[in-house]
Amino acid sequence: MRVGIGILGFGTVGGALLRKLIDENASISTKTGLEIDVVRVAVRDTARERPVNLPAGVLTDDPMEVVGDPEVQLVVEIMGGEDPAGDLVAAALRARKPVVTANKALIAARGKELIGIAEEAGVPLLFEAAVAGGIPIIRPLSETLAGEQIDRVLGIVNGTTNYILTKMTEEGAEYKVALAEAQELGFAESDPAADVSGADAAAKAAILASLAFGTWVASDRVYVEGIDRVDATDVRIATELGFVIKLLAVAENTAEGISVRVHPTFVPGDHPLAVIRGATNAVFVEGPSFDELLFAGPGAGGAPTATAVLGDVVDAARELLAGAEVAPPIRFQPGRVLDFEAVATTWYLRLEVVDRPGVLAQVAGVFADNEVSIKSVWQEGEDDGATLLLVTHAHTEGRQRASLEGLRALDVVRDVAAVIRVEGAGPTPNL
Amino acid sequence: MRVGIGILGFGTVGGALLRKLIDENASISTKTGLEIDVVRVAVRDTARERPVNLPAGVLTDDPMEVVGDPEVQLVVEIMGGEDPAGDLVAAALRARKPVVTANKALIAARGKELIGIAEEAGVPLLFEAAVAGGIPIIRPLSETLAGEQIDRVLGIVNGTTNYILTKMTEEGAEYKVALAEAQELGFAESDPAADVSGADAAAKAAILASLAFGTWVASDRVYVEGIDRVDATDVRIATELGFVIKLLAVAENTAEGISVRVHPTFVPGDHPLAVIRGATNAVFVEGPSFDELLFAGPGAGGAPTATAVLGDVVDAARELLAGAEVAPPIRFQPGRVLDFEAVATTWYLRLEVVDRPGVLAQVAGVFADNEVSIKSVWQEGEDDGATLLLVTHAHTEGRQRASLEGLRALDVVRDVAAVIRVEGAGPTPNL
Repeated sequence: MRVGIGILGFGTVGGALLRKLIDENASISTKTGLEIDVVRVAVRDTARERPVNLPAGVLTDDPMEVVGDPEVQLVVEIMGGEDPAGDLVAAALRARKPVVTANKALIAARGKELIGIAEEAGVPLLFEAAVAGGIPIIRPLSETLAGEQIDRVLGIVNGTTNYILTKMTEEGAEYKVALAEAQELGFAESDPAADVSGADAAAKAAILASLAFGTWVASDRVYVEGIDRVDATDVRIATELGFVIKLLAVAENTAEGISVRVHPTFVPGDHPLAVIRGATNAVFVEGPSFDELLFAGPGAGGAPTATAVLGDVVDAARELLAGAEVAPPIRFQPGRVLDFEAVATTWYLRLEVVDRPGVLAQVAGVFADNEVSIKSVWQEGEDDGATLLLVTHAHTEGRQRASLEGLRALDVVRDVAAVIRVEGAGPTPNL
Repeated sequence: MRVGIGILGFGTVGGALLRKLIDENASISTKTGLEIDVVRVAVRDTARERPVNLPAGVLTDDPMEVVGDPEVQLVVEIMGGEDPAGDLVAAALRARKPVVTANKALIAARGKELIGIAEEAGVPLLFEAAVAGGIPIIRPLSETLAGEQIDRVLGIVNGTTNYILTKMTEEGAEYKVALAEAQELGFAESDPAADVSGADAAAKAAILASLAFGTWVASDRVYVEGIDRVDATDVRIATELGFVIKLLAVAENTAEGISVRVHPTFVPGDHPLAVIRGATNAVFVEGPSFDELLFAGPGAGGAPTATAVLGDVVDAARELLAGAEVAPPIRFQPGRVLDFEAVATTWYLRLEVVDRPGVLAQVAGVFADNEVSIKSVWQEGEDDGATLLLVTHAHTEGRQRASLEGLRALDVVRDVAAVIRVEGAGPTPNL
């Protein structure tokens, strides 16, 4: 069966997708029974040289022409960005054309609205490629686990930052050196802000949480901290303690409410996410019925992302050709999203303090005043001053931060050199 | 929307499924929009006490009554075995009722026929729970990767044997001791034959290969070797070499044809499957576009399997209620399944030989005669006789086995104590 598709955007993913649709057309057709015919492709500049040659008349610089073309039955949006992608996707859905998108920023920002439009129009809006590139995680979360209680999702969902942290861990490199190398090798953009700030991971975390918990979480409700202040010293200390520092997306659903956050995290060395190296992504899902599930694979790149897009195209085309109005697998319900202040976390702190008796008592006093209990504390180095390492028990961010303010106000504390959250029970020193 | 379901079988999975459908009915309905109503349940003995109470009239000892009940719109088959499950599934499909099954033996034996019946009837036959219990692997393979070239699937798909091998690796336990402990703790059945012989894994391997390569592979085309002859000595040697012995399902699709096999395997310690411990299952998929994907989670147990069944029920119900005849995601094509004799493998051998000069020359001569090249050879122990360890390069099973015959015919070889296949390039001794 033939299906005519229109594609918005012709970047890395578009090139990989078109190459796949052209080079492997016969095998795709044999395996799926579908003849996928690329009718129109919208690009910014129709005159530019492209890695894949398309017949004359396919390229256009007007994306609305693609959406409105009566031969286009299904729209693939891989142009990125919220604007004009969002309005184009909405227009396609309203015209009852299924949409496949790889645009995490768009889904994180307007997913709820667009899913609503898709539901009303009775056509699918699929976005497997929007989170963790080539890893099939959206479909398992939203279909296989649709009826299931999910308590927690942990993810390494940004390949650039995981590459940098892996370099820092395995080679003891400083952040800036590891970043420069990642840029040289193409694992980081020349402007790495969206990755290293955690913003990219936060958009993905919001989508994962929304699907896992069935309550839409706007990406501005995600607490975000990037990796740009992670110091080689703490990476080394983590290793010595049997931990590894990862930029973790953490989505939790408790009796109190939902919380979603992205920050550098001490992960125990025997956790399945600890061994995820380089640009690989992984998502770890916890629930009472299935215990723990791990999905790992390439998080980005043209070919893996095109694989995810193609899977969605095949799926959407099957439903389209069946003439069915298939209900979306998840109905989003209102739910309570917690302020981060109310979320309990465990902290590791590295303090530069003056080296004299009574310092520990003052430091401990600050935590006691804020009713934060300390799991372990130990001293490092024997310089002019001294370094104090602390790990707390789990307490709300509000109380932890109040302690932090208190520490900063102490004369004996020269610097709070590092604050990193800890997954699971905190480390204790190997004394 | 309401959907009436009938369930065939009320064992561990049935109990977990019914508990879930009853206890979590409200949350399932909120999340998916479906009211799943259990209309009939077929059991062997209606008088037996059950962990979940059902209204009078729901239980019956006639499974055909369930299939034929006009209120039953969708059938869940979790009775196991090929007979009568196969005919019941066929009857349900012919009556245009979608079927969800957890029955790997049935799908491996009659999957092609049953999928054909489903296709003709225009209703889905779903079996996510049939392979690797709670891990969503069927849907990613058959939907997300439907149009994709897949080169290889490696899996740890039997929890019992992985539990036993993990015990042997971590505690140096002998096979019989580890098996007895697994039986005591409920990880192995009192008759463990189906698991330790590799038969259970072989059925799952056949299903995985069929979906991955789009060519139906009958389970009797799978080469099978169990773990019952794995010796603590080889487990120890593997560890010393930085390897771990796993019962691996290996499905390959090469230019020559398809091969599927299950056998104990030396797996390199840094392979993602090496760290899969205890009763956990994992499936590792390789292809040119997406490189490597890993799926891991609970491979068996009532609750995880019920999770997979429920996911399929939700999916099938959505399509059913949409009134759609959705085409199956994969069209099976004829393909060439290789005889195992023609498949290239790498061997590790442990030989008990007499300890005198010239033995190595004779042993090496046998391999040379069969054109099998040796990657490394080293001697262990210094007893009365001696132990010779060898790792070959990759050669066809036919040639490897001819070498084995030749070795057995040598006077200086007292015993070929172990033959274990190796994943990847073979180990070399740490000399």
